[in-house]
Amino acid sequence: MSMVKLHSVAMISACLLLFYPISVFAAGPGEAMPDISFTLLGIAVILIAAKISNLIERFGQPPIVGELLVGVLLGNLSFFGLHVFEDIRSDNIINFLGELGVIILLFQVGLESNIEKIRKVCLQSFVVAFLGVIIPFVLGTYVVGPWLLPDLSFNTYLFLGATLTATSVGITARVFKDLNKIHIPEAQIVLGAAVIDDVIGLIILAVVSTIATVGGVGLGLISWIAAKAILFLLGSIILGQVLAPKIGKLLSKINTGVGMKFTLAISFCLVFAFLAQKVGLTPIVGAFSAGLILDPVHFSYFKDPKIVRDIKEAINDYDHDSKEKILSVIAPHAKRHIEDLIAPIGLFLIPIFFVITGMNVKLETMFNLPILLVALGLTAAAFVGKIVSGLAVRKANKFLVGFGMVPRGEVGLIFAMTGKALNIIPDEVFSTIVIMVILTTLLTPPILTSLLKKQDKLELKNK
Amino acid sequence: MSMVKLHSVAMISACLLLFYPISVFAAGPGEAMPDISFTLLGIAVILIAAKISNLIERFGQPPIVGELLVGVLLGNLSFFGLHVFEDIRSDNIINFLGELGVIILLFQVGLESNIEKIRKVCLQSFVVAFLGVIIPFVLGTYVVGPWLLPDLSFNTYLFLGATLTATSVGITARVFKDLNKIHIPEAQIVLGAAVIDDVIGLIILAVVSTIATVGGVGLGLISWIAAKAILFLLGSIILGQVLAPKIGKLLSKINTGVGMKFTLAISFCLVFAFLAQKVGLTPIVGAFSAGLILDPVHFSYFKDPKIVRDIKEAINDYDHDSKEKILSVIAPHAKRHIEDLIAPIGLFLIPIFFVITGMNVKLETMFNLPILLVALGLTAAAFVGKIVSGLAVRKANKFLVGFGMVPRGEVGLIFAMTGKALNIIPDEVFSTIVIMVILTTLLTPPILTSLLKKQDKLELKNK
Repeated sequence: MSMVKLHSVAMISACLLLFYPISVFAAGPGEAMPDISFTLLGIAVILIAAKISNLIERFGQPPIVGELLVGVLLGNLSFFGLHVFEDIRSDNIINFLGELGVIILLFQVGLESNIEKIRKVCLQSFVVAFLGVIIPFVLGTYVVGPWLLPDLSFNTYLFLGATLTATSVGITARVFKDLNKIHIPEAQIVLGAAVIDDVIGLIILAVVSTIATVGGVGLGLISWIAAKAILFLLGSIILGQVLAPKIGKLLSKINTGVGMKFTLAISFCLVFAFLAQKVGLTPIVGAFSAGLILDPVHFSYFKDPKIVRDIKEAINDYDHDSKEKILSVIAPHAKRHIEDLIAPIGLFLIPIFFVITGMNVKLETMFNLPILLVALGLTAAAFVGKIVSGLAVRKANKFLVGFGMVPRGEVGLIFAMTGKALNIIPDEVFSTIVIMVILTTLLTPPILTSLLKKQDKLELKNK
Repeated sequence: MSMVKLHSVAMISACLLLFYPISVFAAGPGEAMPDISFTLLGIAVILIAAKISNLIERFGQPPIVGELLVGVLLGNLSFFGLHVFEDIRSDNIINFLGELGVIILLFQVGLESNIEKIRKVCLQSFVVAFLGVIIPFVLGTYVVGPWLLPDLSFNTYLFLGATLTATSVGITARVFKDLNKIHIPEAQIVLGAAVIDDVIGLIILAVVSTIATVGGVGLGLISWIAAKAILFLLGSIILGQVLAPKIGKLLSKINTGVGMKFTLAISFCLVFAFLAQKVGLTPIVGAFSAGLILDPVHFSYFKDPKIVRDIKEAINDYDHDSKEKILSVIAPHAKRHIEDLIAPIGLFLIPIFFVITGMNVKLETMFNLPILLVALGLTAAAFVGKIVSGLAVRKANKFLVGFGMVPRGEVGLIFAMTGKALNIIPDEVFSTIVIMVILTTLLTPPILTSLLKKQDKLELKNK
């Protein structure tokens, strides 16, 4: 038994899956137990598929590309009569775990981000966010809408324009994180702009919804919605800055330990995600803010006091100078940051989000030529609108910023779904929006990767 | 911002919760978004409550006691008109996360357990499991049933006896793990006995269900149920032993990395939990087997190759001998086991299980005196039956083993629920069973803790 070797696990899992058809039809008297087995299997399948898909790194692509593609593959197997992945895709719990995954991702990105660096690029983020809203909105409402979809109402064009303003930062954040580029100015500009964009998007959605239903804008409601979101962002920063150190002392007296710090960090992230959703923002904006507020340097802990003790014991017979030297070498490594504790949660949950995102891509929607053509026009506008917004930045790679803003993801879908619910977006238009969202989401990671690699090469040359 | 200090987080969370009433009634246009905010908040509340409850360690009790008690407290606040915790308790996703938590717990316990040690005590586990089934069954069916609940049918007594045979190992495993006692023989005996008990319990439930409904026992069905469970346990051991090393080589060629090992370990655990539930066992038995099969020594990984590289660089100007010495001291510490990666998942999910378990304790069920008296008699039988089974062990603390088998937990409830569904267990009897399950679950952790501490003191004296 002790000879069991590394990695042997996945294949055993695969072998055991052969038992599956037998056991499914032989459910015992355990029926009174809540049957969570399908969900357990679904998670395992997603995680294994995600890890296999990460082989794509060998072809120079970041893991996210593999996870999205394997998701698209699994999600469309129903086309060949295999429907089990449909059930995984629509499993409530798995979907929640995925959403928790992207919340953890943005929390990690927030922890890795430096608030001083974000402040430095703050103005640029504002410019990018505003241009990245105005240009796609104008393109959608006054150009692409009337041009590609004549005979529809102005309200529909309005929603189309609004949908094009969205930015879903999860995709871009993952690419930057995978390539260890969270710290570059371009990443910080995009992250800041995405947060601002979420606030603007919230306001736009409220405005166009009101115009479309009531016919005019109620300034009171709009300002209330904006005030809540801005209050949340400002409030979290002020609270973090003023109250945190004082209350921290109190709590440090209660309990210190790895478990305590971990729980506090995770709870902080969850509460901020909760509050963000409650003020109408996406939960990931809250998680990002939470990560930004928590200063990982102050949130570090000793990896394990035992290690330092062990090493001290082992070098006990060394002379004093050697001892001091060795200990000073080890000291910085004996510390571990809260990020190390969060990382496994990310390893567990983040792939679920991206595989499920891929699974939601229904390839059959693309088989209708007229719809596909309109969708391609919309996608072109979606790319152009955001790329142009990137041209405004200074002392940074304009295209990296522009493309970083391109993915529309779930935020774009929320706009479209609101429009559909209000009977303003007809079904065919909805399909074109879905295709646009898919294309901006799937095409951006490889583009960002190649831009980042080109930049690395240029820097090497300049050295 | 960078002055934010340690721990400050929980109190900020508490402050932000003050915004909750404002924001709840001001939900914006984000309604099209799936609202996961309640679940996010529920998880944060449970985690913070669990951590605060861990203060109980100062009174010499393990964390689980605090988590169960804080669960009881929160779960019964509805008595005072506060119903928000009702919603948390019945939240599907939070319940799943708790179940996943106890699966991870048993996986960790399996990883920490030594299969050789379990083999050594294997015979003792068998004896404890069998006695721990026979004695409570006889007590329930022929003594407590007819004596405390006259005028009920023999079938009811049969189910009562069956319910008393159950063992829920989650509670005991957590106590042993909290006190770092997974390696002692008593822990290994209890773990082995609990797995065997789960198989026996499965058979008993099938037998009594068949007797109660059909009037007799269908040997074919019973042997099929038993065969599946035993096949699963044997199959997992044989697969682990024979196939694992060979297939392991294949996989190690694909990818090596922290993420890969983590994913494989977690998926292995999930697939085994899935299979166990599919053959009718509790998922935690599968998770424990998975942990037992995975040899943590072979499943270790370099913490971070960067550390070794950094240290090598730092001591580059040392003489050769010193270098060698220092590196040999550091080497064992540069390795980390898969357990370190699983630990944060446990920190996140395990408290959810125990707080929810506590929340399910409805104190008002205890306000009915006749029911309470019967329940106390049943509880006494539940304790006696398992304690007596512990008397059979040799060279180990008999009472530690006996009390370790006492908690009935969710397994006992499954028996009772099956009986209720078959109309064999009347409502009042069901209530007494629930109280018995509660008492065996809540009283055992403090008893085990004091037994373990007494034993530690004795050992110190003998030295």
